[in-house]
Amino acid sequence: MYITRRERFSASHRLINKEISPEENKKLFGKCYNPHGHNYEIFITISGEINEASGMIVDLKDLKKIINDKIIIKIDHNSLNEVDFMKNKIPTTENLCIQIWHELKKPIQSLGGKLYKIRINETENNYFEYFG
Amino acid sequence: MYITRRERFSASHRLINKEISPEENKKLFGKCYNPHGHNYEIFITISGEINEASGMIVDLKDLKKIINDKIIIKIDHNSLNEVDFMKNKIPTTENLCIQIWHELKKPIQSLGGKLYKIRINETENNYFEYFG
Amino acid sequence: MYITRRERFSASHRLINKEISPEENKKLFGKCYNPHGHNYEIFITISGEINEASGMIVDLKDLKKIINDKIIIKIDHNSLNEVDFMKNKIPTTENLCIQIWHELKKPIQSLGGKLYKIRINETENNYFEYFG
Amino acid sequence: MYITRRERFSASHRLINKEISPEENKKLFGKCYNPHGHNYEIFITISGEINEASGMIVDLKDLKKIINDKIIIKIDHNSLNEVDFMKNKIPTTENLCIQIWHELKKPIQSLGGKLYKIRINETENNYFEYFG
Amino acid sequence: MYITRRERFSASHRLINKEISPEENKKLFGKCYNPHGHNYEIFITISGEINEASGMIVDLKDLKKIINDKIIIKIDHNSLNEVDFMKNKIPTTENLCIQIWHELKKPIQSLGGKLYKIRINETENNYFEYFG
Amino acid sequence: MYITRRERFSASHRLINKEISPEENKKLFGKCYNPHGHNYEIFITISGEINEASGMIVDLKDLKKIINDKIIIKIDHNSLNEVDFMKNKIPTTENLCIQIWHELKKPIQSLGGKLYKIRINETENNYFEYFG
Repeated sequence: MYITRRERFSASHRLINKEISPEENKKLFGKCYNPHGHNYEIFITISGEINEASGMIVDLKDLKKIINDKIIIKIDHNSLNEVDFMKNKIPTTENLCIQIWHELKKPIQSLGGKLYKIRINETENNYFEYFG
Repeated sequence: MYITRRERFSASHRLINKEISPEENKKLFGKCYNPHGHNYEIFITISGEINEASGMIVDLKDLKKIINDKIIIKIDHNSLNEVDFMKNKIPTTENLCIQIWHELKKPIQSLGGKLYKIRINETENNYFEYFG
Repeated sequence: MYITRRERFSASHRLINKEISPEENKKLFGKCYNPHGHNYEIFITISGEINEASGMIVDLKDLKKIINDKIIIKIDHNSLNEVDFMKNKIPTTENLCIQIWHELKKPIQSLGGKLYKIRINETENNYFEYFG
Repeated sequence: MYITRRERFSASHRLINKEISPEENKKLFGKCYNPHGHNYEIFITISGEINEASGMIVDLKDLKKIINDKIIIKIDHNSLNEVDFMKNKIPTTENLCIQIWHELKKPIQSLGGKLYKIRINETENNYFEYFG
Repeated sequence: MYITRRERFSASHRLINKEISPEENKKLFGKCYNPHGHNYEIFITISGEINEASGMIVDLKDLKKIINDKIIIKIDHNSLNEVDFMKNKIPTTENLCIQIWHELKKPIQSLGGKLYKIRINETENNYFEYFG
Repeated sequence: MYITRRERFSASHRLINKEISPEENKKLFGKCYNPHGHNYEIFITISGEINEASGMIVDLKDLKKIINDKIIIKIDHNSLNEVDFMKNKIPTTENLCIQIWHELKKPIQSLGGKLYKIRINETENNYFEYFG
């Protein structure tokens, strides 16, 4: 049994590899080298067994609180280039999936579930999935 | 090859464990202990081989009829706490996925497909998946 | 200039006219006479002039707080038949629009805007609009 | 008869009134004073009569080209604070509606239609409308 | 008070003005001169007063039946170029709005409501509105 | 790590098995034997490793170009019964998934990714998935 929680955040980013020149960055990232932003949607999927007493895998209120405290308050209405867990990473959505996985894996275990997937929608035309 | 059919139903429910006191239920389920309701979306995924003569796995009209007769007419515009196949179950969406799986597994085999997944969206922010 | 804020709530309702018999209610309301529920979406539209200092009509945080305090905490995860401002009303979405209009009209004036429209989506297939 | 074309752009912005101090800006705009961004959706509505020969009000290809040339290429994957037609404006969505109205009004007249409304969705929870 | 009902239909069409040559049609309509198709969404908006006994403007079941009998069974899974009420019309969505208005105006009056608007979404990027 | 790109196309089709009679086709395919059409959504999912220099699996611009050149320009605003890679196939969405898989598999390898899944949504109520 899997449960998925969606959260949303609005953030800006600018794709930049700090080890290469501005010209090379412009060539590599094109218009993504400009500061711009998105309404990101994040889907956190957890696997687990149903608890007999509650009929639930985990309590959604607890899950929502963890996602909010560890992720949303840090990145919503902010620049991904400045977020602590994105330091020294190119702020692509691929890297964002991986860093969020590392932030959430242990807190979700403490709820009694197992983190299964991080999916992030960047626009209505592209999304990214990471399974750890 | 997989085919997925979406259907919708509007139902009310109230989360309650009949073996514990009202105070314990209130503590366990919070505001979900109040009668409330949702526009549920259900996605039934079937795996199978393509039939050479029709170019299809199963006929969607037949699939739609099974889902309607076995599930939708029983739960749409109704209270999940009163539905026959939810009797003695806490009407969480987790339990609803499992019970619907049991209702649909055999009828779908009779169509020549194999039930692969039941997904139910409770709100735009959470959904549940069961693979049997 | 118009600004519209969307909020969501999940509620149950049962259509019933208390002045007629159960048989007449069943005939009048069909399956809507059963307790059932929806994920309602409400869109509150406000008209106003842009404030030069902020570039805004009203502050969305203030608007969100009013909608939450006056409406959402009363009806989310509840039965519309029990909500204080729906007392003695048949809990159709038409009546819900009108009652919410009366609850919000003055608080929104105190923000410096003018309530223009209440729209409520009951399902993805029907919605209702009230202009006062 | 009205026709509406939707386009999308991803941009960053930071709400700032340059005539007040950083502390006052922080108090006025809260977390919107941080650089952040959105996937904006813009809906351009045009009124007109149906052309007998084509059965259309205007040709959507022509309308799309105007919106792209005048608006999208300037603001997509960019910072609203830097866009030419937003200079000296607080980059709220209210001001963005008004400036885009001024950019599009005449070019759309040259197509034989009349600009009726600019609507911009900033997130799934709020949108703005301007009728000139 | 306004109520809006959404229905959907999947149809093909080919834009053609029968009074001009194939070359001129190709020039006028571009790739829309090829047979192609859409999942159309139609929104029928009705204005009216609330009936005291039911709390409704009109009964949605009756409205749904009229839309189905007059429109959907004729155009769903069909070619718009062949539909009876589109004969001798270029099958643009503009013309479709107008013809559907004429088909629905009287039947909706017989329900006790007044047809206010026909909106048709052709794709997620364009829609058309007709107010009679 | 997986990346998914969505593209859209509007096409008509008519389900027909050329080896059986019109009566048999009508019986087998029902109203799908009429020419009709859809706004198809296609989701192409690619698996791969993150490139250290770019922080990406593949460049979305390159992926978009391949999908457009190999698929979209051939089928958008066209009849699936006439598309070159659908010749001699019943134009069901099942067969469309398989044929598109064959068209895209090699070009995507040349980008450095691996084609993982083709998903096509035919309407909001049904979709098809093929994993090769």
